[in-house]
Amino acid sequence: MSKKYVYDFEEGNASMKALLGGKGSNLCEMTSLNIPVPPGFIVSVDACQAYYNEWGESLPNEIIEDYKSHMLKVEEKMGKKFGDTEDPLLVSVRSGAAISMPGMMDTVLNLGLNDKSVLGLAKKTQNERFAWDSYRRFIQMFGNVVMNIDSALFEKELDIIKESKHVEFDTDLDASDLQNVVKAYKKLVRKEKGIDFPQDPYDQLKMGIEAVFSSWNNNRAIIYRKLNNIPKEINGTAVNVQVMVYGNKGETSGTGVCFSRDPSTGANVFYGEYLMNAQGEDVVAGIRTPNPMSTLKVQNEKLYNELLKYSQILEKHYKDMQDMEFTIEEGKLYMLQTRNGKRTAAAAVQVAVDLVEEGLITEKEAVLSILPEQIDQLLHPQFDTNAEKKTKILGKGLPASPGAAVGSVVFNAQEAYDKNQNGEKVILVRVETSPEDLMGMDAAQGILTTRGGMTSHAAVVARGMGKCCIAGCSDAKISESAKTLTIGGEVFKEGDFISLNGSLGNIYGGKIPVVEPALTGHFETLMNWADKYKKLIIKTNSDTPEDTATAVRFGAEGIGLCRTEHMFFEESRINAVREMIVSENIDERKKALDKIEPFQQKDFEGIFNVLEGKPAIIRLLDPPLHEFLPKEEADIEKVAKEVGVSVSHLKQTIEDLHEFNPMLGFRGCRLGVIYPEISEMQARAIFKAAQNVKGAQPWIEIPLVGNVKEYTILKEVVLKVAKELKAENVNFKIGTMIEVPRASLTADELAKECDFFSFGTNDLTQMTCGFSRDDAGKFLQLYVDKGIYDRDPFQTIDKVGVGRLMKQTVELARKVKPDFHIGICGEHGGDPESVEFCHEIGLNEVSCSPYRVPIAKLAAAQAALKE
Amino acid sequence: MSKKYVYDFEEGNASMKALLGGKGSNLCEMTSLNIPVPPGFIVSVDACQAYYNEWGESLPNEIIEDYKSHMLKVEEKMGKKFGDTEDPLLVSVRSGAAISMPGMMDTVLNLGLNDKSVLGLAKKTQNERFAWDSYRRFIQMFGNVVMNIDSALFEKELDIIKESKHVEFDTDLDASDLQNVVKAYKKLVRKEKGIDFPQDPYDQLKMGIEAVFSSWNNNRAIIYRKLNNIPKEINGTAVNVQVMVYGNKGETSGTGVCFSRDPSTGANVFYGEYLMNAQGEDVVAGIRTPNPMSTLKVQNEKLYNELLKYSQILEKHYKDMQDMEFTIEEGKLYMLQTRNGKRTAAAAVQVAVDLVEEGLITEKEAVLSILPEQIDQLLHPQFDTNAEKKTKILGKGLPASPGAAVGSVVFNAQEAYDKNQNGEKVILVRVETSPEDLMGMDAAQGILTTRGGMTSHAAVVARGMGKCCIAGCSDAKISESAKTLTIGGEVFKEGDFISLNGSLGNIYGGKIPVVEPALTGHFETLMNWADKYKKLIIKTNSDTPEDTATAVRFGAEGIGLCRTEHMFFEESRINAVREMIVSENIDERKKALDKIEPFQQKDFEGIFNVLEGKPAIIRLLDPPLHEFLPKEEADIEKVAKEVGVSVSHLKQTIEDLHEFNPMLGFRGCRLGVIYPEISEMQARAIFKAAQNVKGAQPWIEIPLVGNVKEYTILKEVVLKVAKELKAENVNFKIGTMIEVPRASLTADELAKECDFFSFGTNDLTQMTCGFSRDDAGKFLQLYVDKGIYDRDPFQTIDKVGVGRLMKQTVELARKVKPDFHIGICGEHGGDPESVEFCHEIGLNEVSCSPYRVPIAKLAAAQAALKE
Repeated sequence: MSKKYVYDFEEGNASMKALLGGKGSNLCEMTSLNIPVPPGFIVSVDACQAYYNEWGESLPNEIIEDYKSHMLKVEEKMGKKFGDTEDPLLVSVRSGAAISMPGMMDTVLNLGLNDKSVLGLAKKTQNERFAWDSYRRFIQMFGNVVMNIDSALFEKELDIIKESKHVEFDTDLDASDLQNVVKAYKKLVRKEKGIDFPQDPYDQLKMGIEAVFSSWNNNRAIIYRKLNNIPKEINGTAVNVQVMVYGNKGETSGTGVCFSRDPSTGANVFYGEYLMNAQGEDVVAGIRTPNPMSTLKVQNEKLYNELLKYSQILEKHYKDMQDMEFTIEEGKLYMLQTRNGKRTAAAAVQVAVDLVEEGLITEKEAVLSILPEQIDQLLHPQFDTNAEKKTKILGKGLPASPGAAVGSVVFNAQEAYDKNQNGEKVILVRVETSPEDLMGMDAAQGILTTRGGMTSHAAVVARGMGKCCIAGCSDAKISESAKTLTIGGEVFKEGDFISLNGSLGNIYGGKIPVVEPALTGHFETLMNWADKYKKLIIKTNSDTPEDTATAVRFGAEGIGLCRTEHMFFEESRINAVREMIVSENIDERKKALDKIEPFQQKDFEGIFNVLEGKPAIIRLLDPPLHEFLPKEEADIEKVAKEVGVSVSHLKQTIEDLHEFNPMLGFRGCRLGVIYPEISEMQARAIFKAAQNVKGAQPWIEIPLVGNVKEYTILKEVVLKVAKELKAENVNFKIGTMIEVPRASLTADELAKECDFFSFGTNDLTQMTCGFSRDDAGKFLQLYVDKGIYDRDPFQTIDKVGVGRLMKQTVELARKVKPDFHIGICGEHGGDPESVEFCHEIGLNEVSCSPYRVPIAKLAAAQAALKE
Repeated sequence: MSKKYVYDFEEGNASMKALLGGKGSNLCEMTSLNIPVPPGFIVSVDACQAYYNEWGESLPNEIIEDYKSHMLKVEEKMGKKFGDTEDPLLVSVRSGAAISMPGMMDTVLNLGLNDKSVLGLAKKTQNERFAWDSYRRFIQMFGNVVMNIDSALFEKELDIIKESKHVEFDTDLDASDLQNVVKAYKKLVRKEKGIDFPQDPYDQLKMGIEAVFSSWNNNRAIIYRKLNNIPKEINGTAVNVQVMVYGNKGETSGTGVCFSRDPSTGANVFYGEYLMNAQGEDVVAGIRTPNPMSTLKVQNEKLYNELLKYSQILEKHYKDMQDMEFTIEEGKLYMLQTRNGKRTAAAAVQVAVDLVEEGLITEKEAVLSILPEQIDQLLHPQFDTNAEKKTKILGKGLPASPGAAVGSVVFNAQEAYDKNQNGEKVILVRVETSPEDLMGMDAAQGILTTRGGMTSHAAVVARGMGKCCIAGCSDAKISESAKTLTIGGEVFKEGDFISLNGSLGNIYGGKIPVVEPALTGHFETLMNWADKYKKLIIKTNSDTPEDTATAVRFGAEGIGLCRTEHMFFEESRINAVREMIVSENIDERKKALDKIEPFQQKDFEGIFNVLEGKPAIIRLLDPPLHEFLPKEEADIEKVAKEVGVSVSHLKQTIEDLHEFNPMLGFRGCRLGVIYPEISEMQARAIFKAAQNVKGAQPWIEIPLVGNVKEYTILKEVVLKVAKELKAENVNFKIGTMIEVPRASLTADELAKECDFFSFGTNDLTQMTCGFSRDDAGKFLQLYVDKGIYDRDPFQTIDKVGVGRLMKQTVELARKVKPDFHIGICGEHGGDPESVEFCHEIGLNEVSCSPYRVPIAKLAAAQAALKE
């Protein structure tokens, strides 16, 4: 074996994440910083890939020999021997990919124990109970994780013995009880698998390492990677083999998790939780509720200070908030892991800005440190403070992930998923969550658990998802069989509404109204830095003064898409619109249009007022006309009466307007080319509004252009109106949306005639890929699952196809006009990866929904900084 | 005026068509050949453009002075003066564009006459009747053409005088009657226009020239240019001002039209028609039925021989069949016009091949001489000879344009157009046709007129359109008011069926069955030459052995598109297809597919047998599945019973399959990606069939690919089947249709995986231009009328947009595989202009419907020869 697959902790460092995984490379780094880390070695990610691609999912002898030689070095350091019957060296076997996937892959502890060494361990530690408890835990974990025996079967054996002893807790069992448990477990293994529990430590180790490699492709890991958009280049996990230290060797031992800052708020306080006489899994799994760090300070200040020191060293070293695991073995502190801590968006912003102020990182690094998608959390509504104050708090839990959530109660992940598919908003209520609950958590508005701490599964995953979560709410009682949640004396059945404040941990009955978030404090500081470094202009898609005001508050620099047809649907004018559609000649049509015009003018005045001189791209009428007409028989009769035509006339109009493929039908500029009076009316409303509002900057946008002549015909219509209204002094532009592939292909011709382009990537994606968004549901998810498309091309720009066309469009246009202004509007404008792409191909602006403006801005700044 | 706008006939030649028009440049050429041509001059096409673009549609003084100086030269040659009161020089003023547009633009004869010179003319010619007849004709023509007075008003005045004299024909009026006609006409002019009829010859000339220029943009000229796809570069007409010679100076005068060969059959016989004592318009307008050339030979052999001599000189000179106009003035022959004669397709082929055999032109010139679109005529069915023999001939007319036509009788152009729009086949029956009838002629299967000769309007236009026409059928009587056609004693009302044999001039009642045309004789010779020079492979679109056999007879070199879904619709298997669609799981689906497989296999065996080793591109199932299900309630019930599912289940399936934009929905390769068992079945049927037929060459085509991974998934499915069936020895290929823009954009990726591409330009046009063919009817014709698209992009490839994408596709693919095979199928493959484009961008093959194979072949040969 010429290639190096196994590394001592002394051989690696933090930069070797891709090869050694996040956990392993950090163990190496800590080792080099002289932090007390139990020794060990790492089997690399390369080995994992070889395991799948070359070794037929079985470790070859060469690699076994290789890690045996590394084990010898560990034995030397510890002065113990792996598998020794007198004083056995025991190890943990853990996964560790380049990107953290907490709880997704397998772990085995206490590996190296067998029927003989358990006796030596008992003797050496003078703690028979500890030795047998370790052995029974090892058999249970190994049996489940490596040998695939249902965990419940082990629990059942344990329960039988507890019942026979009439005790409630594991801790009430003594050494001889635990010996019986071991016997029962070994019998179970033989029964289930037809073989004896492996006694040879190196057999155990080989099986353990293989199990971790295999767990890379278990179902929940695959789902996790998909949910978190983990790139395909992250392909495999390393295995960390490390000497065991024990937090469960009695009351001078313990284990815990700590953060160099508060991961929920970002406040610069040392933060953590621990349990004495416990193993790490006990804290993370949320089975017992742990103590806060402040208790440790009281109980053992020296140890607390040592931990705090390591925390500070590590934060300074990594220049970021650290998430650390530690174990105290008989009074001695070991650091088992450190990594950049997961945090809420609020914490992320707080930490980033604080670190700049503390001089640890630069503004640019701060901007680059925040995942743009994550700050979505900060942009979601919170409860209305007054309403919340007046509402009775039914109970309190840990504020595990901030934000507000309102929904009906569901008790399992499947229900949550199903109801969400039906458009219902739900709160997932569980005793505790496990990786099997992932899909349900994703589907819920918020999560409430009755057990587990701030670092429990529910809390960690919810924070990652930016989803409101209250964990460990012991005030609440759940009956899974009756499907009831009892809290504060009230009983909630499935379907009843509750409200969660994830920032405070408060639980309320019913629905509390929510209010808009604001861009202030540290968040404002960060966004100002983003403004400083970004190159793209960030605008918003908005059709109303209200949405425009929200977007401007979030920093929008104008409107990138104002869809005028939304105004047509309003109660006050929809019938005038219908009159226009059923018109039989141009005079009737003009009469109806005259009724609509003053409304449109007011719409635009409202928007211009809010914009205070910022530009607004206003798209002329786009949808097919049949969208404005009723579909149901009863509605048809009603509308016919209101509009003043016969039912048969209206029906005939509806039939005439029927289309086989409305997406590709009579819409967009085609309406204006055939009925120029519609475009004239809209142009008149825009110019009159602009003349009434100082500084108004309308950019008039002709939609669905595929041919330069369509554009020039409507440009002439608009210019004629401008002339008639003497609107030459209005600061206006005329341009087109690029959404038809032919427009892209002839962008040079179009650019000659246009003042600007804006990519309508929704339609451009539909036509370029040849699938309609409304219909693609049938196969698109399967396409993503099969890897035909890496992402849903309606969410993230399909760079390979649509992106190539966009790039070509930009090149063609700039060949004609080197400084030509080009933007993008629609869903993709708020997607960070798409924003980065837009920066790369040299667009001038992106436009997105008001609530995504800061996300787009941050993504734009990062794109500029990454250059 | 520095630019030269006016040319004597001595100053031009045949190569100056663009500047002097076809007619003018040929008059110049004839003049230089010493053919007796009445002298004159030409106001150029450049002047026409200036007239519209610079001169505000009025001739400036400079140009008037210019042509006056040319008129002086003509006066010198003739020894007469324009406007002279003793012996006036009279001229004709005629249009003449670079491309002939017979009868579309205006002409004025006898110009120069006025109240005084008419007296001089009478004296000089000793023919008072002739002088006054000329003057009244002049006023009528000038009044109508130049002054826009309705021609019927003049006819009415004439009728009043005829009635008062109790005579039937104009010729029965004497000089004094005609003087009265002139008086009446002048009064009419004053009444209608408020001015006196212009007396100054140069005023007349200016108005005449301006009228001709203006007629370039009259309605019927615009329609003609559109119908005949006359390019926009042909922009304006020249005006020919030529000394008048008279065929109506008595019985030693006459006028006629002749062809150097028979324009109907192409036979090398001198052919023509003339009328003595008549003006040219009398022959062309079809008002009197003229005499054949053979009569002239008998009446005046010397003149006949002189005419024949000029005909031979001109044909040799122009190396093509000539269409000549002549006038005999008091025994002296003048040639007024020559041009390459319009001819039927049969004649075109005959003439071209004969000219090669006579050594006048080369094979290449012969191939280039035929309009590919025209040979469509030769490829249309003729009557079944036996059936025709047994059918009673009701009447006979002139075989003005060959072919067979069956349809219901209509009596005006509007009816013809309307019924054609409703999908009805009609025969347009008219006394005679005029340019106003163009749209109706285009809409009819065939045309029958009761008046007019082989060179009448109906005959000329029908031949140009390749449409069956019988002209001058005096056996038939039409009552336009009663809407009846009476012929051979039978009365046909509107809607009754008749059959026309345009090659023989026979008219039958009812519908006669038709038979297929064949590729033999001269046509075969020509197509062999085309084969020799073309570079493109010409294949056919065919789904049946029958169509394939037809195509092979026409020279198809394989199948370029076999749509397998057409086979799914057949009675014998449609229910098995429906069973597949309503299946609830893969096993049910496979069971249904097993039923379909043997049918598919037989389909392919049939096709492979006919192809005898030629390749066949077989496209896997393409349409959305809902197309196979019933739509009407009653059908749903029937089908549910037949297929053996509940009505509600079938309805649910139909609902599930409903799509908003089926064009962009679940179809094409998407079906196979989601249900690979469908593609497996088709692949199995193809390979088994290929194993059963020696030399079979299936090229399996994956439809609607937009992403290389869709393709590779289905390629694997096909290859797996091939392996299972041990079909490695089958000579097969796998490729894809390029019809989704994204496939074009990623053609390099696709080419790596494919053996071939075939452009599906129907769908590619829909998606690239963003309009659905089914829905675009609402605006596409208007778009073409407005010049947004030059042509219907579904008929001729939109070179600017779709074409650019195609070019790019070819370049990307050939960058990866320099010899990569690329073709095109669908409608565009049979359109000559599109075929030329395919040649230009380097495609390897085009595929079209069987009946268009020779057209595509000829277009391909011409494209290659034009290089």
